[in-house]
Amino acid sequence: MNIWQGIIIGALFAPSVWAATTPASMDQDLAYQLVESLTVEVGPRIAGSEADRRAVQWALNKFTQLGYDKVWTEEFDMPGWTRGQASLEVVSPFAQPFVLTSLGGSVGTPKAGIRASVVMFDSIEALEKADAAAVKGKIVFINKPMTKDKSGSFYGQVVAARSRGAVEAAKLGAVAIVIRSVGTSNNRFAHTGTMKYDETIAKIPAVAISVPDAQNLAKMLERSSRVELKLQMENQLEKATSHNVIAEITGTEKPEEIVLISGHLDSWDQGTGALDDGAGVALVMATGALIKQKIKPKRTIRVVLYGNEEGGLLGARAYAAKHHKDLDKHVLAAESDFGAGRIWQIESRFGDKALPFAKELQQKLAHLDIALGGNSTYGGPDVSVLAQAGVPVVALSQDGTDYFDYHHTPNDTLDKIDPDSLKQNLQAWLIMTETVANSSVNLRH
Amino acid sequence: MNIWQGIIIGALFAPSVWAATTPASMDQDLAYQLVESLTVEVGPRIAGSEADRRAVQWALNKFTQLGYDKVWTEEFDMPGWTRGQASLEVVSPFAQPFVLTSLGGSVGTPKAGIRASVVMFDSIEALEKADAAAVKGKIVFINKPMTKDKSGSFYGQVVAARSRGAVEAAKLGAVAIVIRSVGTSNNRFAHTGTMKYDETIAKIPAVAISVPDAQNLAKMLERSSRVELKLQMENQLEKATSHNVIAEITGTEKPEEIVLISGHLDSWDQGTGALDDGAGVALVMATGALIKQKIKPKRTIRVVLYGNEEGGLLGARAYAAKHHKDLDKHVLAAESDFGAGRIWQIESRFGDKALPFAKELQQKLAHLDIALGGNSTYGGPDVSVLAQAGVPVVALSQDGTDYFDYHHTPNDTLDKIDPDSLKQNLQAWLIMTETVANSSVNLRH
Ligand SMILES: [Zn+2]
Ligand SMILES: [Zn+2]
Ligand SMILES: [Zn+2]
Ligand SMILES: [Zn+2]
Repeated sequence: MNIWQGIIIGALFAPSVWAATTPASMDQDLAYQLVESLTVEVGPRIAGSEADRRAVQWALNKFTQLGYDKVWTEEFDMPGWTRGQASLEVVSPFAQPFVLTSLGGSVGTPKAGIRASVVMFDSIEALEKADAAAVKGKIVFINKPMTKDKSGSFYGQVVAARSRGAVEAAKLGAVAIVIRSVGTSNNRFAHTGTMKYDETIAKIPAVAISVPDAQNLAKMLERSSRVELKLQMENQLEKATSHNVIAEITGTEKPEEIVLISGHLDSWDQGTGALDDGAGVALVMATGALIKQKIKPKRTIRVVLYGNEEGGLLGARAYAAKHHKDLDKHVLAAESDFGAGRIWQIESRFGDKALPFAKELQQKLAHLDIALGGNSTYGGPDVSVLAQAGVPVVALSQDGTDYFDYHHTPNDTLDKIDPDSLKQNLQAWLIMTETVANSSVNLRH
Repeated sequence: MNIWQGIIIGALFAPSVWAATTPASMDQDLAYQLVESLTVEVGPRIAGSEADRRAVQWALNKFTQLGYDKVWTEEFDMPGWTRGQASLEVVSPFAQPFVLTSLGGSVGTPKAGIRASVVMFDSIEALEKADAAAVKGKIVFINKPMTKDKSGSFYGQVVAARSRGAVEAAKLGAVAIVIRSVGTSNNRFAHTGTMKYDETIAKIPAVAISVPDAQNLAKMLERSSRVELKLQMENQLEKATSHNVIAEITGTEKPEEIVLISGHLDSWDQGTGALDDGAGVALVMATGALIKQKIKPKRTIRVVLYGNEEGGLLGARAYAAKHHKDLDKHVLAAESDFGAGRIWQIESRFGDKALPFAKELQQKLAHLDIALGGNSTYGGPDVSVLAQAGVPVVALSQDGTDYFDYHHTPNDTLDKIDPDSLKQNLQAWLIMTETVANSSVNLRH
């Protein structure tokens, strides 16, 4: 039993267009209600899109309804990438279509498509060692599988092919790159995610195929040394803007001291962005609102819903740039962006003298089966920008064993969230946030 | 231990274009090798398509390589349905796209699409009782979930909405029908399958959406009484032909007596047709071939790979029509068409005097954990046509608990087949088929 269990505090303020459609109640179900509202009423919301703008409006309305003291947006410029039609098929010798997705940011193909034979590599490291003669004029296929674990530690190893495979392949003269989806499921979904070009290297189209398709292609290559593919893809890039949405519960004693909790509002366009990062958005929105219902925190609780995390932390960088003079007043930053699994560990990045406070936090979370981790976390993708700027961070580490079964695929939908796990998350965020907001601890020392 | 375990009988005959790409060996892995070959080298093969013709060629070549005594095709005419582009999106108030698939045989929409508001029903029975006033001009949405079990017994209840939902909805003036996918998984795949029109009722487009999309749409309807959808779809229908592919191991003593074992060669186009029905095709092709390597069966073993099962048993009907004078020489018919799960039961449809033979078969299969079921099976979809014409049938019932997680979706791929389960299936098919082919039992009596 803890202080946050069972609170039920009536209905919402500030009726609006959203209130009529969202019978949220201010209790431990609030996070689930918020992520349900976001995924049902907005759905996918790729940064810079019209859906992104609706998501921003949704967030503004929700923050207002939830009784936050201040609510505002901060606009930033960004490259706006739009996914068009895409198809990838084996032309010969085993003609059949593949399930693919464009990687985020990829250029399209000429209208007639690109037709070429395939050369397979086990990893981007193997590609980097290849002879240009083996790659020139071909479609590179990187077929690296990913292993599951609680902390998603294999993601970094596999995602390199997605991030910079196009550059490495183009250096050797490849005409396109196809990667095996970065993910841990054998469901026939392709995993999207951002990729980068180098302005000095030719920009070639980059796509991912599902795990079963990658296995199929590998089996074709066992049978035939010349497997020809045809890729057609229509993507667009243009200037766009997006927004960070920010809301505060103003501190009573030290309003200038900011406890920042966050998630990212944008999502990839294939699913409805429930796990990534609807759950995180919902958790931090609910945390501030429920704390205000119960206490008047001494420090200000600032909830930041970053825009365009997926395109490369663009909202986070815009926030850090805009607020760089105030970063020393950020006493702590934390982010929820790893799905909706139970929290099993709290990690920190504090000054040495503040380490006892990490232990104090963990002790308050112990009844939720949360252990104490190390002191070297970057806190989460967006928050890492603040950590690098010296802001103390904590990470409430979620069990991500199944996260990469769904992540960045069409399968990232509301039904993948376990409401009980989300409640456990909410308890932890409430306790952690309230404790820091009501203390005067300096975590930098 | 049984007579079929561990046989390994060297390499294949009749080298051809396929032999170079298929290092099959004549042992208990043969069924897996065949389904791998079919899914990798041919892939999806919707009846009447160019891929269907390649599948027919694949089967002819394989039967020849496997040493069958006779191999031939039997052509039949059929309506050739081609899936075009399709999209379904919520226009208002919660704009977002859905994952859909056209039902097989559905008409398309006008080029501009169909835009209308949704009316939801829990089942086709509820739709049938509805007032035309509630349905006219709307898109009907049938949101009936499906439950899992070993024998797939809930399929029949749910599939009615797919088969005849369009007719029932059109009777009441609906402009299109959207059904919740017939399936047991919450993966975001839509389940296709054949549907029927009534020539006296308006033909409206019919699609399925994935389970998460159906849940999402239902939640939208809780929030708003007017949810507008836009459906665009381009399908085509034209005359086509397909083929049954037939091969025989000629009986030594009673060559005119036929033991027919079968599967269907066609598949839906979303997956690669591994479970439905590549596994069945592979099992019966392997069965005849491995029996010939070991014995000279007294009766003829005829392997039939039906064309166009998915469109409504068209190959099976063509076979029954063409062979109607010989059906009394068919001593038994059996089919494998329920995935690749372990066989747990043998059922029969024999004359009463032949019931002891069903028990005898089961005793020979008992070491594979196969129990004796009832005497009222129709044997399988295609074989049911023969059963109705009086041909005795058996069914080697597979555990289909997970079958409808994958069935008729993009997720029906090779990796969903457990090789060990497929070996157990092969053992059972070998024992059953050899026993009947080497006996002189009359199963009609
Ligand atoms: Zn994220
Ligand atoms: Zn992400
Ligand atoms: Zn079938
Ligand atoms: Zn089927």
